[in-house]
Amino acid sequence: MKATTEYLWFQTKNHREYINITDSVEEIVTRSGIQEGMVLVSAMHITAAVYVNDAEDGLIQDIDEWLEKLAPFNPKYRHHRTGETNGDSHLKSLLMHHEVIVPITAGKLDFGPWQQIYYAEFDGQRRKRVIVKVLGE
Amino acid sequence: MKATTEYLWFQTKNHREYINITDSVEEIVTRSGIQEGMVLVSAMHITAAVYVNDAEDGLIQDIDEWLEKLAPFNPKYRHHRTGETNGDSHLKSLLMHHEVIVPITAGKLDFGPWQQIYYAEFDGQRRKRVIVKVLGE
Amino acid sequence: MKATTEYLWFQTKNHREYINITDSVEEIVTRSGIQEGMVLVSAMHITAAVYVNDAEDGLIQDIDEWLEKLAPFNPKYRHHRTGETNGDSHLKSLLMHHEVIVPITAGKLDFGPWQQIYYAEFDGQRRKRVIVKVLGE
Repeated sequence: MKATTEYLWFQTKNHREYINITDSVEEIVTRSGIQEGMVLVSAMHITAAVYVNDAEDGLIQDIDEWLEKLAPFNPKYRHHRTGETNGDSHLKSLLMHHEVIVPITAGKLDFGPWQQIYYAEFDGQRRKRVIVKVLGE
Repeated sequence: MKATTEYLWFQTKNHREYINITDSVEEIVTRSGIQEGMVLVSAMHITAAVYVNDAEDGLIQDIDEWLEKLAPFNPKYRHHRTGETNGDSHLKSLLMHHEVIVPITAGKLDFGPWQQIYYAEFDGQRRKRVIVKVLGE
Repeated sequence: MKATTEYLWFQTKNHREYINITDSVEEIVTRSGIQEGMVLVSAMHITAAVYVNDAEDGLIQDIDEWLEKLAPFNPKYRHHRTGETNGDSHLKSLLMHHEVIVPITAGKLDFGPWQQIYYAEFDGQRRKRVIVKVLGE
């Protein structure tokens, strides 16, 4: 089994942001030389997510609005007694999940026609990281 | 490391449908000959999900109603400006997630007593695919 | 490829409970001797979850309240016609997901500063199990 590990760094301009990282992940898979296996793409923070869906701007705004409805900002979260103000960012992260596994077949991401990998930032404007770990042969 | 890749195809009669694919996945694992490892079961579309839960019809109807409540059909999604009408199908897919990893021990799915793998279709009546990738030894 | 499989057992005092299992998972990874790979941590029940987030008591109470809001107890679930009363536990499990994959680099969980692994029990007071499967080299 071969393993390659790389990290992607982000510092978003906005508090919440959605960034297509498919090309970056593909480059890491190519560099790894792994032909058959999988790549784990996992946020290293508890107020961010990694998900697979469509690269369509309208949908991304729909997702953002939907997340704010299901996991809204609220000054009253108990978590805020620690001095934090990002309780909603944790809940949004849990709803969307912090990681995906993408299959690799014949050296490429084995994706359907519309699948794209996104990093979703829910508490940005600071340096944050995603691990990309390729495993296989 | 050994790797086996197969694809399951679906064309549902209904717009939304829940299909137990545990037996199909088990057969692929058996064919692979892999004794220790994992199987990735991942929808290749962004309006479908793969999840693990109970094979109980009442619960499946509860899940469907719950999803419609948390991620309802709504003609006003921005995504619909592209001509689509399936904004809710994307949100349902994100809520349920598009993939699971099942451990393989001694050549079998290492599951608890009630765990079953489901393909959840949220925008059906067209041909769609799930990748089943077995990795291990 | 090397594989190690161990199981963690739980019997919670309360109906719902959140248990930090990071140290137990780390010990299993250390015992496995695997330096590069991943560990799958997966609930073997359909009314429990495994997730990665913060070890902060206020936040854990926020998560519990949020789950009860999005997937509430309700006597009217169809699933209850089977004699069960835990429809909400299944929905909470689906919302939080039953498993995570944690990358292993240089023999350790390759985590960001605040990431911790939790077992979330949504229908406790009985014996339940989590599989911890380490794969790699």
